[in-house]
Amino acid sequence: MFKWGFQIPFNVVAFGYDGTIYPVNPHETELLGSKVYRTVGDIPDKPVDLAVVTVPAQGVLDVVKDCAASGVKAVIVVTAGFGELGEEGVRMEAEMARVANGNGMLLVGPNCMGVVSPSPRSLYCQMPAVTPKAGTIAMASQSGNVGGTTMRLAADHRLGVSRCISTGNEAVVRIEDYIEYFGEDPRTEVVTAYIEGVDDGRRFLDVARDVSRKKPVIILKVGGTEAGERAARSHTGALAGSRDVFRGACKQAGIIQVVDSEELFDVAAAFAGQPLPRGNRVGVVTYGGGWGVLAADACAEFGLDVVRLPDDVMAELDSFLPSWWSRNNPVDLVAGLVERAYTRSIEILLKSDAIDGVIALGIGFAARRASIYRRQAKEHADGLLPVELPYEELAEQVIEYEAGVVDEVLRLIDRYEKPLIFAADSVASAYYDQNEAIFTLWDHGVQVYPTPRRAARALARLAERHDHLASIGVR
Amino acid sequence: MFKWGFQIPFNVVAFGYDGTIYPVNPHETELLGSKVYRTVGDIPDKPVDLAVVTVPAQGVLDVVKDCAASGVKAVIVVTAGFGELGEEGVRMEAEMARVANGNGMLLVGPNCMGVVSPSPRSLYCQMPAVTPKAGTIAMASQSGNVGGTTMRLAADHRLGVSRCISTGNEAVVRIEDYIEYFGEDPRTEVVTAYIEGVDDGRRFLDVARDVSRKKPVIILKVGGTEAGERAARSHTGALAGSRDVFRGACKQAGIIQVVDSEELFDVAAAFAGQPLPRGNRVGVVTYGGGWGVLAADACAEFGLDVVRLPDDVMAELDSFLPSWWSRNNPVDLVAGLVERAYTRSIEILLKSDAIDGVIALGIGFAARRASIYRRQAKEHADGLLPVELPYEELAEQVIEYEAGVVDEVLRLIDRYEKPLIFAADSVASAYYDQNEAIFTLWDHGVQVYPTPRRAARALARLAERHDHLASIGVR
Repeated sequence: MFKWGFQIPFNVVAFGYDGTIYPVNPHETELLGSKVYRTVGDIPDKPVDLAVVTVPAQGVLDVVKDCAASGVKAVIVVTAGFGELGEEGVRMEAEMARVANGNGMLLVGPNCMGVVSPSPRSLYCQMPAVTPKAGTIAMASQSGNVGGTTMRLAADHRLGVSRCISTGNEAVVRIEDYIEYFGEDPRTEVVTAYIEGVDDGRRFLDVARDVSRKKPVIILKVGGTEAGERAARSHTGALAGSRDVFRGACKQAGIIQVVDSEELFDVAAAFAGQPLPRGNRVGVVTYGGGWGVLAADACAEFGLDVVRLPDDVMAELDSFLPSWWSRNNPVDLVAGLVERAYTRSIEILLKSDAIDGVIALGIGFAARRASIYRRQAKEHADGLLPVELPYEELAEQVIEYEAGVVDEVLRLIDRYEKPLIFAADSVASAYYDQNEAIFTLWDHGVQVYPTPRRAARALARLAERHDHLASIGVR
Repeated sequence: MFKWGFQIPFNVVAFGYDGTIYPVNPHETELLGSKVYRTVGDIPDKPVDLAVVTVPAQGVLDVVKDCAASGVKAVIVVTAGFGELGEEGVRMEAEMARVANGNGMLLVGPNCMGVVSPSPRSLYCQMPAVTPKAGTIAMASQSGNVGGTTMRLAADHRLGVSRCISTGNEAVVRIEDYIEYFGEDPRTEVVTAYIEGVDDGRRFLDVARDVSRKKPVIILKVGGTEAGERAARSHTGALAGSRDVFRGACKQAGIIQVVDSEELFDVAAAFAGQPLPRGNRVGVVTYGGGWGVLAADACAEFGLDVVRLPDDVMAELDSFLPSWWSRNNPVDLVAGLVERAYTRSIEILLKSDAIDGVIALGIGFAARRASIYRRQAKEHADGLLPVELPYEELAEQVIEYEAGVVDEVLRLIDRYEKPLIFAADSVASAYYDQNEAIFTLWDHGVQVYPTPRRAARALARLAERHDHLASIGVR
């Protein structure tokens, strides 16, 4: 039941693959309603597009040879126990590679988790049951579980993935091959990778540089410390190499580097959902001063310029904001309740020629507010809260008000082709609150960051990419 | 309805204050079922413990004088429009301070959001409806909304708060006074503060140094950049001062500094829920290699030592782990399904004299797994998934298995007085999955971080505090 040989084909079927599967196992006759073949060679409908190999390590080479002999186009070797265990494993991998290359057969792995490719045909061909929708973010990962984390974040934030590949030991197809493919893949717009080590640093950099002229390439490179390198060596046998050298080379090649899986997702989401800014000049709108200060600090830390507001912007804001607004950037509405102050302020910043992108703080608070009103309504009905208020009406009002704000935000995004990045602490508990405002933003590709710092960090990456493209004359 | 003068007393009542409230308003006769008094002086039951002032700025000084004349013990001035707006406001604040100090009356604010104090009597005396349970984390915040963020995170993660004070412009009681109080407060074990600026740097450092001998003091200091300083100035009128000077002085005083509200919560949660380690030597247990490498890198980055495992630990792990385990720290179980391998490995690390604390990666996955099985059961019943499996039984099995893991974890925490910090990507969607494993951990004060990096960062702060206490001879 929990065997890979069952779970992977089960996931393929359960998550909607509509092609034919041919189980192969000499000891079985039927699996998942399909006839089981004794060998790959016995499969009648040749050539098979993809074979997934989960037999024990000592049997893998024979199966790979069978696949090659039967004209299988591509093989994923899930089985572990090769190069990561030592010399004998390295030798077996070399033999695997010889067979595959000699027969023009692609080979993913060994020691990998499989492949996810929701479109054009739904193929969730992996052990973990993580099923993001079809979208534009691609990932090649030298760790199956880091790939799984990214897909899980994508699924939970309603963001789509084009491909996610667990690359394993890379006996044949290497991390840079996937990146090269992502560069050509029409369904991929954002390229990401988790990397423990690269065998051919030169080729990796050449490929990544080329791809990054077309699409953002976001790399999480690990193993840069002694403890990390030791861990990577026992994981995939990768040699991590010097972090500083790698970093410098990547920077030159226009590759975006991130520190962990959280930043990788934050930044990929920003690229997937936002246009590039034309520079680093930022306007900030906030309901409260503290978050504004946090955002201003974070912008400065990450190289964004929280510009002084030009006179025309100031005049327009003055025309409707209450007299006590901050008269400064961040535009602090001081919890002011002027109708539509939030979206009007955002729009004024977005349309200014002096501002390249906007960070808006605070959205998605209606759901919590409404659920509190509803709890209070119940407490009132139960005689626990002796205050008569139109609780249900208030709940509806606040939800409706925010739905209007979200509509307006989506209009602004369509109208002004500038990044508009949100941060709100409501997002961390979006599911707790069944927060429709946040869900609607997500469904439109607008991510909301849990802190101003993470929003600024993501926007800074967009600005850096603009600078890079401008510096190489592509933009 | 949305006025502060209604919302604050409403929240006080709705969130369970069991004392008497006396609304004061010359134009009303009844509020929330209580008789309204024309002036503070008219209240019969003197002395009043606490007055909350929300009248417009020009009327505040008279009300404060009334309070003083009536023997009110403490006043919270919520109203804004004082020092943050310029000279006239500064003058009014000075007058407010003169009246308060001359009459032995405490004064919180002005320009603040109020106070939360769940215990010993429930007092949620603020505008935002954020209601963490009673616990040990205290916060003094120069921003009401950053205080609100912390409380919201606490509430959502089922972590308790002792006090949360929005300090506002600090005309009388200053940030260091609250910190000093937290030091004495028997209900507070973890002291946190959001700070834009301090008036008396010398006194602040003296107080913080003293308190930090007894309790961890965690500071989020902002306004360290030019943009941030400008924002802080228009927010509370604070002068931020040099970041580097402040940082260095804090470090010497044993104060723990964090970069944003997320880290503040992460670190406060660790201090609230974990014992201090006796050093920086860490063992890591992981289900997957990638997360292990991320953890190892992060530990090194934050000054934790991912120790080489001593022979006795290796031997004990070898005795039951499958042959392909990493034989290294991180202890990578390589998704091995040996019964109880996870908790057994954790225990072996916890009990080793060579290890001061453990980071365990991956927990809380049963809920998602079970909900997928249940969805599949439904799809099967609807004829959409042509595979017959004991879906409901599998769902129950996986939930039950993990409940056992959590029980065992809680036992280990009780038995070994060492920090055991978790990271798992399941935590980000705990509410999506109604994740009882995570909820149970939270209910026992065990926080689970969404990434290995955040777990390592939090654990590193605990180790730093041990070092600091040892260096001053307190531990």
